[in-house]
Amino acid sequence: MSPSPTSAPTHNTITLAVDVMGGDTGLAVTLPACAAFLGTHTNAILLLVGDESKIRANTHAGNLVNHPRIRIVHASELVTMDDALEVALRRKKDSSMRVTINQVKEGTAQAAVSAGNTGALMAVARFVLKTLDGIDRPAIASVMPNMDNTGTTVLDLGANVDCSAEHLQQFALMGSALVSATTHTAHTDNPRIGLLNIGHEDIKGNEVVKQASILLQKTPINFVGNIEADTIFEGGVEVVVCDGFVGNVLVKTAEGLSKMIRTRLMDELTQSWWRRAGSATAMPALNAFRHKIDNRRYNGAALLGLRGVVFKSHGSADAYAFGFALQRAYDAVAHDMLMKTTQMLEKLQS
Amino acid sequence: MSPSPTSAPTHNTITLAVDVMGGDTGLAVTLPACAAFLGTHTNAILLLVGDESKIRANTHAGNLVNHPRIRIVHASELVTMDDALEVALRRKKDSSMRVTINQVKEGTAQAAVSAGNTGALMAVARFVLKTLDGIDRPAIASVMPNMDNTGTTVLDLGANVDCSAEHLQQFALMGSALVSATTHTAHTDNPRIGLLNIGHEDIKGNEVVKQASILLQKTPINFVGNIEADTIFEGGVEVVVCDGFVGNVLVKTAEGLSKMIRTRLMDELTQSWWRRAGSATAMPALNAFRHKIDNRRYNGAALLGLRGVVFKSHGSADAYAFGFALQRAYDAVAHDMLMKTTQMLEKLQS
Repeated sequence: MSPSPTSAPTHNTITLAVDVMGGDTGLAVTLPACAAFLGTHTNAILLLVGDESKIRANTHAGNLVNHPRIRIVHASELVTMDDALEVALRRKKDSSMRVTINQVKEGTAQAAVSAGNTGALMAVARFVLKTLDGIDRPAIASVMPNMDNTGTTVLDLGANVDCSAEHLQQFALMGSALVSATTHTAHTDNPRIGLLNIGHEDIKGNEVVKQASILLQKTPINFVGNIEADTIFEGGVEVVVCDGFVGNVLVKTAEGLSKMIRTRLMDELTQSWWRRAGSATAMPALNAFRHKIDNRRYNGAALLGLRGVVFKSHGSADAYAFGFALQRAYDAVAHDMLMKTTQMLEKLQS
Repeated sequence: MSPSPTSAPTHNTITLAVDVMGGDTGLAVTLPACAAFLGTHTNAILLLVGDESKIRANTHAGNLVNHPRIRIVHASELVTMDDALEVALRRKKDSSMRVTINQVKEGTAQAAVSAGNTGALMAVARFVLKTLDGIDRPAIASVMPNMDNTGTTVLDLGANVDCSAEHLQQFALMGSALVSATTHTAHTDNPRIGLLNIGHEDIKGNEVVKQASILLQKTPINFVGNIEADTIFEGGVEVVVCDGFVGNVLVKTAEGLSKMIRTRLMDELTQSWWRRAGSATAMPALNAFRHKIDNRRYNGAALLGLRGVVFKSHGSADAYAFGFALQRAYDAVAHDMLMKTTQMLEKLQS
């Protein structure tokens, strides 16, 4: 993944609709992130979607609200983390989340970014935008760190818990198009796709995975076969496909283990004054280490298979992390992710 | 998990059959581990199963082969990592793995320990020992590290890829009995059992998991409901139940991520002479950290649901790690794991 602003291939403007009310922190995170993003992306226009008076009153708004490439789009309601899907979908029709997605539907923005509740965002996005022809179910894709420093894209991460082989095939196509558009490494013109399994051999796995392997071999993508979960962190493939139950367990395992290891390391380094003194001289190395495993750099999950570009930031993202979600949405537009997905689906059907 | 030799509740002898030829390294690992184990477990008898002349000729054998609590049981063949299941099962009837399991079947040992190929070990153990009444499928259980330092037992880890709700229920019973017998913390008389899911709410998850949740609520165990994968590393439950596909992905994710983080940390600490000099003073903290996340202390997966106690060491285990697999097998015998499992199955059926 490249957060670099040099990745825009065009001088046309790119407009992103940003749900500035979403996430655990809301405006205090989203407004500084938007201000920084405008500074580094001179062809970007941002629609700040949310409660207009709160946006204007926020201390972080500063000169942002008068910026020539900012527009405020008022939305009177907010989808909370506790709202049931039905509330997000049927009752709060003027939520910042819904109005953000509406901008993509109406063509006033080319992509939407929200840090709101994942389930609600997927439900609203699917309801408003609909799925692409040839896609039964949208999926959620995110990037995991790997030894190559390129990141491995994994999908689905929880949108679909009972998947068929055909669903896994569609995820592979969507993942391939996403990586072509949003990452910039040697392999990303024709990303290598692995099918998550519990062994490399064709006879391994459950029935759905075995069937998916057969389908994927007939698909116009760079399918490299079965891979095991540890390969995700080694690198070697750009995309890993699995059902949403498995993908969700995978991501939560990685989150839980990372947190435990970080906590243990900090506990040991700081548990006494002599430990703290000893640790001080290792700080350059430890800070470099912390930067390398900083999962904020991988923030921004893609909602794929929709008739529009939607990215989801982690709810607890800070402004630095939220900037990466904006970057990924921007890249997906700049490099025509939707067109690439559609072309792949047409190839599959022809 | 307690590796302490003080956990034996009885002065009766406990006999373990050890496949000393198995694993990546074989005798150079298993013999030193057996020697150390006999020193700390004065009521243990070990049957060293393997090629007798190779055992006697091995430089690590030393005084071990003349130890009063050692017996050598000759086996002329070896199951390799590449052998197909059929070879392990039908052709190599005098393999060290098969003869080790036979000792349990014949009652000359109370438990078997092998570092051989997992699939072959499960197939041979199931064929020779058969499953307990009320168990459709054996399972593999291992311990993951957690913040409590107590370890969280997870099963199944790959023996069963297409599971029904009833299978998950059986795994929960077997896991509960295993933890009662092999770990020694406040909760282990009545271990807390979580069902791995992608959210806490009952409506979450795939169909099998939803059904399993209903079954588990009627089961005579301490079922605490759905848990997410990050909870495994926080502690709070002693046992986590999932199907073998998901469990295998979970373990491989943890292995791959741990390896990446360790490599990154060492790279940063040692990448230049001044980094190395700076790191030196932090070494006490870093070594303590390394000890805390040392997965060798969690070596020893249990093969459950069989009419006998079988533990599987990691193939790449060193002597220190192999000792933990011996310890876990010893604890399972000392604390009557099989009887506890049987009693639970009877309660379920009554």
